Amino acid sequence: MLLRTLFRTIAALLVAVSGYSQSTATEGETVLVIHGGAGTILRANMSPELELQYREKLAEALRAGHGILASGGTSLDAVEAAIHVMEDSPLFNAGRGSVFAHDGRNEMDASIMDGRNRMAGAVTSVTIIRHPISAARAVMEKSEHVLLSGRGAELFATAQGLEIVAPEWFWTERRWKQLQDALRAEQNPAAAANLTPDAEAFVDHKFGTVGAVALDSRGNLAAGTSTGGRTNKRWNRVGDSPIIGAGTWADNRTCAVSGTGHGEFFMRWVVGYDIAALMEYRGLSVKEASELVINDKLKKAGGEAGAIALDSKGNFAMPFNSAGMYRGYIRSDGIPRVAIYGEDERPASPPAQEAP
Amino acid sequence: MLLRTLFRTIAALLVAVSGYSQSTATEGETVLVIHGGAGTILRANMSPELELQYREKLAEALRAGHGILASGGTSLDAVEAAIHVMEDSPLFNAGRGSVFAHDGRNEMDASIMDGRNRMAGAVTSVTIIRHPISAARAVMEKSEHVLLSGRGAELFATAQGLEIVAPEWFWTERRWKQLQDALRAEQNPAAAANLTPDAEAFVDHKFGTVGAVALDSRGNLAAGTSTGGRTNKRWNRVGDSPIIGAGTWADNRTCAVSGTGHGEFFMRWVVGYDIAALMEYRGLSVKEASELVINDKLKKAGGEAGAIALDSKGNFAMPFNSAGMYRGYIRSDGIPRVAIYGEDERPASPPAQEAP
Repeated sequence: MLLRTLFRTIAALLVAVSGYSQSTATEGETVLVIHGGAGTILRANMSPELELQYREKLAEALRAGHGILASGGTSLDAVEAAIHVMEDSPLFNAGRGSVFAHDGRNEMDASIMDGRNRMAGAVTSVTIIRHPISAARAVMEKSEHVLLSGRGAELFATAQGLEIVAPEWFWTERRWKQLQDALRAEQNPAAAANLTPDAEAFVDHKFGTVGAVALDSRGNLAAGTSTGGRTNKRWNRVGDSPIIGAGTWADNRTCAVSGTGHGEFFMRWVVGYDIAALMEYRGLSVKEASELVINDKLKKAGGEAGAIALDSKGNFAMPFNSAGMYRGYIRSDGIPRVAIYGEDERPASPPAQEAP
Repeated sequence: MLLRTLFRTIAALLVAVSGYSQSTATEGETVLVIHGGAGTILRANMSPELELQYREKLAEALRAGHGILASGGTSLDAVEAAIHVMEDSPLFNAGRGSVFAHDGRNEMDASIMDGRNRMAGAVTSVTIIRHPISAARAVMEKSEHVLLSGRGAELFATAQGLEIVAPEWFWTERRWKQLQDALRAEQNPAAAANLTPDAEAFVDHKFGTVGAVALDSRGNLAAGTSTGGRTNKRWNRVGDSPIIGAGTWADNRTCAVSGTGHGEFFMRWVVGYDIAALMEYRGLSVKEASELVINDKLKKAGGEAGAIALDSKGNFAMPFNSAGMYRGYIRSDGIPRVAIYGEDERPASPPAQEAP
């Protein structure tokens, strides 16, 4: 038992150091990689209890998706299941943990893509759908469209029998407090300096998207992304998460990608598809391509960002140019590996692993 | 006078045959290329009077943009001016000629991009903004966002002082009749066979976007696209026109692109950015790249489509895989050249030229 824990701790530290895994999966092996948002995530602002909550929820999402992959399920199902766990958690800026827009509403966006055929679906500015990722999937599978927005998307999701909830379902005190902080900071920028550590830990208000990419036992890739957008956003702003090619991409011939970060940069740099194009047209590996886009192109442009990218051989990368990114992966061995901070800030405590 | 007309007719025929121009502009030369939608545009369904109206309006849009370029104006201003002309014309599916959604409303999308710095702006599902392309530009220049949607976008545009009109401004009898035809066809598919020729000429209901790409005398590229979407669309469907990288792209290092056609394919094939990526990563010319995407990739996928693409040397292409595409260009010589049908259906009458 002690040896097992030690082994896993070392493996997890290696992953935390390298930040990615480049090893090729064996035939039929499955991989699920997830993120829970990138941003100014610093140990100094995070209590051990809160960190543990994040680690455990990431591991739960990984196990949910892995359960599907292990029983021969599809990468699409695994992506959806992993994102459901994060959408239902108030920890992440998606579904129930969504941040508030300027008018006090929770407006959510999501998208999903099937690597077999580039089929894709997305919804934007929805307010009453419990699992926006499932609404995106319904758009992909039950309509001839790619993107539905606002009330129309909600009517479509309702007609498809998706779970509809009252807008209050998405109300959480922490996120409400963040909006009040943001509104006060607008009135009085000096007030922003007086935020409590707990509030600061959540002041990833620009960046808190969740996402998943998966490779199933048949070698098919899928990707999905879900978000509550930005705290205090106005004018029905739409970010990159529902944009195919920006926040989400999947094509078996190249890779599956989900992004998190400053959405406007993801849109202007077409991040998801650019990673794929660098692989297809330049012959870069999934690690080289995603590192180039996140840590070179976007960094130079000033866009704080992270992404997860997975190819159809099981190679993946989790680059980010921010202080941290909630992230993790699970292979056929069924052991979830999770990390939060950057390479030089590796966690002292062992990462969450499989359930006891 | 006769010689001049003859010369221009021959030149126009050559352009109609080649479908593009590959010649390089001289230093400081300006180019403006526009489209008014691609689709099943057949001479058999088009009256000479209607064809003349299209040709004259395309020429008017070209002259409006060229006037700006010729006096040292920017490519962004030229793109916006050319699109204004088409947005104000009931001939095109944008602005005043927008098709009706299922619920009897006109819902418009637009986007614009600056090739100097990849700045971009877009609006979707707006119903009261006379010139959606100008709202997209305001998003780019006056907000920190790329994409605003629905009521939020309208409030933003109103606050920016853009021209607001009653939704009735966008009501036109032809488009209303198209919606009624589409609704009847839904109830009774056999009725679709009984459409009048005039109605058929306008049954480009899937594809009627307008767009422009321009190169100004300082060598800067810009691109813009504006659309009313699809007749009888439901659920606030959003197509490719407001999606940066799909319907619109501009980067001085590669090209400026505006697309028209089956929007869902443009989104899944990331058409605008793919043309740029093929140029940057594979070294293809703007003609090779745009032909590959429109006439190979999208054609194989089953996506009816057209695009205009212009590089910073003044080379451009206007490929389409549909029966026709309303299109035209104007160089520093100030002579607008327009075409409608495919290469093998070249117009018998001389295209519209400069104003008398």
